[in-house]
Parts: sequence; structure tokens; C-alpha cells
Amino acid sequence: MQTDLSKKFGIDYPIFGFTPSEHVAAAISRAGGLGVLGCVRFNDPDELDATLTWMDENTDGKPYGVDIVMPAKVPTEGSAVDLDKLIPAEHRAFVDRTLTELGVPPLGDDAEHATGVLGWLHSVARSHVDVALAHRPALIANALGSPPKDVIDLAHEHGVPVAALAGAVDHAKRHVENGVDIVIAQGYEAGGHTGEIASMVLWPEIVDALGDSASVLAAGGIGSGRQIAAALALGASGVWMGSYWLTTSEYKLGGADKGPTAIQRALLAATSADTVRSRIYSGKPARLLLKTKWTDAWAKPDAPAPLPMPLQNILVSEAHQRISAGSDPEVVAMPAGQIVGRMNEIRPVAEIIAELVAEYDRTVDRLDAAR
Amino acid sequence: MQTDLSKKFGIDYPIFGFTPSEHVAAAISRAGGLGVLGCVRFNDPDELDATLTWMDENTDGKPYGVDIVMPAKVPTEGSAVDLDKLIPAEHRAFVDRTLTELGVPPLGDDAEHATGVLGWLHSVARSHVDVALAHRPALIANALGSPPKDVIDLAHEHGVPVAALAGAVDHAKRHVENGVDIVIAQGYEAGGHTGEIASMVLWPEIVDALGDSASVLAAGGIGSGRQIAAALALGASGVWMGSYWLTTSEYKLGGADKGPTAIQRALLAATSADTVRSRIYSGKPARLLLKTKWTDAWAKPDAPAPLPMPLQNILVSEAHQRISAGSDPEVVAMPAGQIVGRMNEIRPVAEIIAELVAEYDRTVDRLDAAR
Repeated sequence: MQTDLSKKFGIDYPIFGFTPSEHVAAAISRAGGLGVLGCVRFNDPDELDATLTWMDENTDGKPYGVDIVMPAKVPTEGSAVDLDKLIPAEHRAFVDRTLTELGVPPLGDDAEHATGVLGWLHSVARSHVDVALAHRPALIANALGSPPKDVIDLAHEHGVPVAALAGAVDHAKRHVENGVDIVIAQGYEAGGHTGEIASMVLWPEIVDALGDSASVLAAGGIGSGRQIAAALALGASGVWMGSYWLTTSEYKLGGADKGPTAIQRALLAATSADTVRSRIYSGKPARLLLKTKWTDAWAKPDAPAPLPMPLQNILVSEAHQRISAGSDPEVVAMPAGQIVGRMNEIRPVAEIIAELVAEYDRTVDRLDAAR
Repeated sequence: MQTDLSKKFGIDYPIFGFTPSEHVAAAISRAGGLGVLGCVRFNDPDELDATLTWMDENTDGKPYGVDIVMPAKVPTEGSAVDLDKLIPAEHRAFVDRTLTELGVPPLGDDAEHATGVLGWLHSVARSHVDVALAHRPALIANALGSPPKDVIDLAHEHGVPVAALAGAVDHAKRHVENGVDIVIAQGYEAGGHTGEIASMVLWPEIVDALGDSASVLAAGGIGSGRQIAAALALGASGVWMGSYWLTTSEYKLGGADKGPTAIQRALLAATSADTVRSRIYSGKPARLLLKTKWTDAWAKPDAPAPLPMPLQNILVSEAHQRISAGSDPEVVAMPAGQIVGRMNEIRPVAEIIAELVAEYDRTVDRLDAAR
């Protein structure tokens, strides 16, 4: 499974694993892939700094990356307190009413109340870049379009390549014009922010459009060695997997250190048909777990329209926190791709990667034998 | 590119080509694939009979198949005249007004007026089966769920295997329980009637769920040898391609014998982003060419909701006929998959198949070399 990207990064397999968990990211890197830490949840730069120090110390000297979310259109700036004022009372009333109706318990008195994902703000994302570059990231990825030109230049000055996510050929070309080195071609079936064109069509289209100007990572629908073989067959230089790590043993966020959380139990139970693309998470279309009472509530005729990014996530962040702290797997709000149907047990990262590699090898053997 | 299905049918390549054109279907079979003639357009059994006689005589003795559309839920029976009475006046007025606004010319005085696709009616589909079995079909496929049990039994008595299309694991399992031999796993990106789960996730999921109980053909998003390699990597025993044949030299329907039609010019110009899933064609969700003035008109707030199958197609059939006879490529109504972005010139079937095979071989060579 050697490609230009596995050679460029000096990794055993061109398997790039995006995750908000530093424990999972480090395990991916240690197992021969490249773990990419999602930074959007770090509202406090010092917390990110400490986490990256931990990454430096727990990856056996192997490379890792960071993912920073910088929207192409800079959303409204301001602190959470300022932005709060832009949220209509009707929306707040709907969220409060829905949580009560769904029986989601309030937070305990000692809980720190979530303030929403400020990482989507330009200023916060920029501070993430500065913090990251003081460590040893092998890759800076941007999950929402091209990073600003000066960020790309800054990364390049530090010798760090830049990746950006694209859901269409035009976006991919624009990224490369802006100086991006690696395009993550993300199909319709992916979790989180995603477009309309499915992976089978999108990946080779972007590979062909970019030619030698940039390498392509395939994202959206990958959770087996056969799917990795398909991605490389379609011309990708590696794969970018996100959802699949949410049910790993190393995932400790949201209380998972005390056993599977409500979200994890919902992920384990879900089929490929149990996701939906919706604006209720962030204000932009993102694929989430479907058929939960929470997504259903937003689909009802009396529900308000989701707010634009970043207001929607600020609106729902405490609701997400309450839902996560609750114990009802039928009430969750979690980005996840259609590959969720293949996520059926909690397993260690190293075991997953070994299985991906073994199945990939068997697949290429099978194709070879069928000629 | 040898699989259980290429061996079963005695064909050079497991490339199954669905097309409403007997000229295209015969060319696919002659080139080493298996051409499958879509029968839904034949309202007159004698016309189908004559066409299959032509197929018998023009396929060099090579196998071909037929595709018959039998919905799982039997729609309202009756002749076109009876069914006409079920169409609301509001819908007719909307279609008339829209065609006028879009400048679509009326039919000439000598034109035979289209009566809509009656092949979706159970009685008509059954007559198609009887007509087909008097010829030498190597395969009977059903594009809408399992055929009725007695049709499957009848086909098996004639030694003809039966294929059925599925967009989800549950459908696929039900087909096999009903006696279907081959499941066509059709992903979200496909043209025509299609579900929500994309090919990258759907194909291996159905392959795993069926095990040895049935072979799987991969459909949705295929138009290159790399995509065929991906399909076989994911465990399919072959591919089912539909949209891709609409821009072949052999395609003569709708006036294509006199040069590219308005529909073909729209297909050649379209990108992968130019399709939409909509109920306006048949009453069930089907992927069509997007961003045409016709689909836009149906998306406007003043447009009526599409009627249930089969009424919607009866409603719009003369409109489709007028649009096809017209010359404006911005006003078309045509099922097509996201692969339309790769359909950029009118080419002979044999050239396409040779290219698919050559690219498939190069792809397996490349995977082999990368280990």
C-alpha cells in the first residue's frame, strides 16, 4: 500500500485518520497511519498547546497532523457573549422546549457550560495555527475550503504541507491555485460537512482535474480494506477516515473513558441508512446520525430554520452537552458518515489498522488472480 | 476481468449495459459485455417482439438480456385513457403553462402523441415477460424491486436467471428470499430510480449481507475502468452501467439518428453536479439532469406536487415528447447519473468497452506495483 503520500510522510500506510481525540490520533500514528487531531473543539489556545505537547510525547516520534477549520467566508467575529446576542429568542425557546420534551436532563450545578464551537471563527482558527506550528505537525488540514493564503505561506515556511477538503472539482482547483498541497476529496456519504457528489464519481474526477498539481486523499465511505483498495484504484494517493474512529477503545471524549457513551451506543446500533444531511449542527449541510429524536424535532413543521454558521452551533452547543451527558441513545447529535453501518463494536485502533491492511492485501490478490 | 458472472453468461467482460436502445444493447453484447434492453418504453407487445427478433439476429449469437419494470406495489391498472381521468386539471394546466413559458414548440400535426410509460403497469410488464421468453434472453432484470414470484419461477423454468435492483441491504435480502439470482446494488449516484446510500458504502454492504446466496452487480457511478476495478475490489461480480450509453454513436432514439439531440447535447455539457433526485419524472425519486428550465419549473413554489406512479409519467409524457422534439438543450427531462460529468463525446460502444477494459488492466497493474 505504498503511494506518493505514504513516502512523503514516511508512514507505513497512506491511512489518514481525522479525530477530535488526541488519544486516537496518537494511536493512529503509532500504528503506521497518520493521525490528524481536530482542533475545532479547543476554544482555549493553552489547552491545545498542552494537548500537542502530549502528542509530541506519545507518538513514538512518528508524524501527526492537525485539522483547523477556517471557512472560506469569514463568519461574524466576536466572543461567544457578543454572538449570543445575534441568536433569536424563538430559536432558544425551541431548543429549551425540545430538550424538555425529549426528557434530556439539565447539566449538574458544577458543570462548565459549553459556549459553542468558536474554532469556526477566523481569529480562533488563526491562533490554532500559531500554536500548532510551535510543535511538530507533519500536516495542517483545513476542513472548510482553502485556508487563507498567508496561513498556507506560513505553513510552507515551516516546511509543513497543507491539505484542504473539497466536495467538487471547482473547489479542488481553487485550493491548488491557493497553494494547497493535498486535496481531500470528500464524497456525499461522508460525515460532517459534505456536498452532493458521491465518492465513486467525485474521487476520480478530482484526481483527473488536478493531474500532477496535487495529491488526492479519498474521504467519504471508507471503513474496510476493500474500500481503501477502491480508493487507490480510483487514483487517490491515500484515504482520509473520520467517522470510523469514533468507536475505538482509545476514544475518551464525552465520558467514553467510563464505558460506551450514548453517542457511541447510537453509532454501534446505526445502519448506513441512519444518517441525514442537515444544517442543524453548524448552519452548513453536514451529515449526522439520523432518526434520533433530536434531528426529528428539527424536521417538524414548527421547528425554526437553522441559523447561519457560527450561530447555529452556539445555539445548540449546550443542548449537545446535555444530550451527551444524558443516557438516551435515541437522542444524539453527532456528525457521522454512511460508513456508520460498518461500525459495530468498540475496538483498539491498532487492531482496526491491521485489519484494514490485511483486507487491502487480500483484495489486491483477488483482483490479480481474476485476470 | 473474469468473475463468476462473466463465466456464468459466457461473456468476455462482466460489463452489463442497460439501455432502451436495441442498437446499443446489441453493440454491447457484440463487444463482449451483456447488453440489456429496457422494455418499459414498449407499450405495444408486437413492437417488443419485432425488436427482440432484431436482437436475436444482430448479436452474433452472443447473449443479451431484457429489463422489465415491475413495481413491488402494483400501481393502478387500466389503459392510458382510464388513467388520464385520475390526473388533476391543476397539474395539466401547470404543464401546459410551463411548456408555453419555456417556448417548447407543440408537436407537428402528423406526430403520434405519447401516452406515457405503461410498462410500469403490472399487466403490461407481464406481457413483456411472455414476449421476451419466446426469444433467447440470457437474463431478465427488474428495475423496481423483486418481480412477482410466479414471474421468477417462469423465468427459471426457461433457464433464465433473474436480476433485481436494490438500494438497501433489506431490499437485497428480500430479493434473494423471493428467488432472485443476481442483485444489482444501485447507489445514490445512479441515474433513474435510486436510494440514499452511496455506492462506496452500499456495494460491499450488500455483498457481505448476501454472501454466497446471490451475485452482486455494482451500479451507480461507473464510466471508467478505474470505477470497474473499484467495483470488483468492493466485492461485486460485475458492473451495471446505464447512463453512459446515452451518448453512444449507436443510440438512435428520439431523433439521434439525425445527429445529437437536445438531450444528448445537454448530457455532453453536464457536469457531475448537474443532476438532481426528484419525483417529477415518474412519481418515485429518480435522478435526472439538473438545472434545466424544466426541473427548475417543478421546483418553484407555485408548482404542484408530482403525482404518484404511474400518473406522473402519463401527465408529463407528451411534454417529454415535445421537449425531445425541440432544440433547446436547457429544457430537457432525462434520467442520468452523476457519471454524466464523464460523458463528453459521442463514441461507438466498442470503443468505450475497449477503453474500459484497457483502463481496468492498467489499474490492476498499478495496484499490484504499489505493494
